[in-house]
Amino acid sequence: MTAPGQGAGDPIRAPGRDRPAAIGPLSLNTVTVKERWGLADCIEGCARHGIPGISPWRDVLQAMGVAAAARQIREAGLTVTGLCRGGMFPAADAAGRAAAIEDNRRAIADAHALGAACLVMVCGGLPPGSRDLPGARAMVRDGLHTILPEARAAGVTLALEPLHPMTCADRSVLSTLAQALDLCGELGEGAGVAVDVYHVWWDPDLERQMLRARGRIAAFHVCDWLVPTTDLVFDRGMMGDGVIDIPRIRGWVEAQGFAGYSEVEIFSTGNWWQQDAREVLDTCIDRHRTAV
Amino acid sequence: MTAPGQGAGDPIRAPGRDRPAAIGPLSLNTVTVKERWGLADCIEGCARHGIPGISPWRDVLQAMGVAAAARQIREAGLTVTGLCRGGMFPAADAAGRAAAIEDNRRAIADAHALGAACLVMVCGGLPPGSRDLPGARAMVRDGLHTILPEARAAGVTLALEPLHPMTCADRSVLSTLAQALDLCGELGEGAGVAVDVYHVWWDPDLERQMLRARGRIAAFHVCDWLVPTTDLVFDRGMMGDGVIDIPRIRGWVEAQGFAGYSEVEIFSTGNWWQQDAREVLDTCIDRHRTAV
Repeated sequence: MTAPGQGAGDPIRAPGRDRPAAIGPLSLNTVTVKERWGLADCIEGCARHGIPGISPWRDVLQAMGVAAAARQIREAGLTVTGLCRGGMFPAADAAGRAAAIEDNRRAIADAHALGAACLVMVCGGLPPGSRDLPGARAMVRDGLHTILPEARAAGVTLALEPLHPMTCADRSVLSTLAQALDLCGELGEGAGVAVDVYHVWWDPDLERQMLRARGRIAAFHVCDWLVPTTDLVFDRGMMGDGVIDIPRIRGWVEAQGFAGYSEVEIFSTGNWWQQDAREVLDTCIDRHRTAV
Repeated sequence: MTAPGQGAGDPIRAPGRDRPAAIGPLSLNTVTVKERWGLADCIEGCARHGIPGISPWRDVLQAMGVAAAARQIREAGLTVTGLCRGGMFPAADAAGRAAAIEDNRRAIADAHALGAACLVMVCGGLPPGSRDLPGARAMVRDGLHTILPEARAAGVTLALEPLHPMTCADRSVLSTLAQALDLCGELGEGAGVAVDVYHVWWDPDLERQMLRARGRIAAFHVCDWLVPTTDLVFDRGMMGDGVIDIPRIRGWVEAQGFAGYSEVEIFSTGNWWQQDAREVLDTCIDRHRTAV
């Protein structure tokens, strides 16, 4: 594609033209270097590169061991901006839904052990074989209500993450910020939202919904939407390489009082997951300055 | 995937369980057999298979010639449920936007010549190199206002089609039914919406928005969302092969007074475009009865 900002004519906006002056600190979501580094490598890498935040996925967390990870993260002086992920509530039968609740309980305990700012909730899609979207949404709501008391007791904020509508069938029937904020309002204390620019940038109602988000934004995730996008999950771009006006969305998030981290979360089998992880971190740091 | 409706347990809904009793007639969107048939073949095929509606794309229409196509469609007794497509308004400069307006004028003339029920508007994405989503949306609005008088004069309804948010960057910054209805309200007479289940099924606000659509629904398009979906454009499924509760959405559409055709529009490089076109039409007829 033409690099955004290079074209001529009035519709072109220079990248970062409207960037708010202040910018929150950077956090590395471990999936960004998924095929290169385990969690211990990520912790060392963040410390070495001066990245003050980290957000582990549970697979690398389990591989390292929760206690060892918590200790090493603490010793490195890193902030855990989130744990990915809880959720995945819908299932075809009661046993499946009960297993999901159990898994969420373990995730809450892990988030508590790490002192994570939140547990990111990827709520789940349709159960296999189902076309019942309202039913799946009811399962998500039920699941959240079930685990909320435990999350509150552990001091773990459940960060409901609306996922891009293209993931509705198999990953998340929670698709818009409006929907996430409605659920937050119903759940009350202990529930928040995770705003990922990749999932919400297209939403014509985003600016208006953001006005309802004060006090609710528990996490802010960044990456970019590539043109063309060749895969529904694994073709995310580095900030600045795509078409999302990230500074505009960051401005809305900060206008609602969020002063937290910008967490870089990139799924990219074909590009970033193939790069040297140290160079990926250097690029994240650079783009955090210039394109977020 | 597990065939929808086959699983056990309470979340599973049998396909078609809630199907409204009456069902509108079938229409073939020519893209469904894109790599097999030209427009003359499609017209003959519809007549031979007893499919009473047809909706051509402009590439096959131009290849056949508008006058010849109009005559043959009329002689075959087919209803033209739409012409695909107008739109694509945003461009990086004024010359590009003017060229888009000219192209839309030709499309309106073609739709008029065919006696099409509507001109389907795929409104366009971001101009190359742009991150200015509000700017692109303004170009869409401006373009629609510019061509509307001509469409009214020709008696051609502009059917604004909200496209799935995954197409926002490069095909349509018009992403939701709410947005399309807002635009309709602003444009007034001569503007309507095209409801394609593929584009809107995920929308948590769909049922509520549908209540605003009375008198505005100019077209109803059907296909299905496959799990997994392997391409953002060219991996649509045949009705019944995916996870969309099509009868539920059809019920909403009909509850708003739409008694028109169900138009089958399937982009499928890997499957349906490879099949014998006569068998594809047979399958469309069968699934129209059982899965729409």
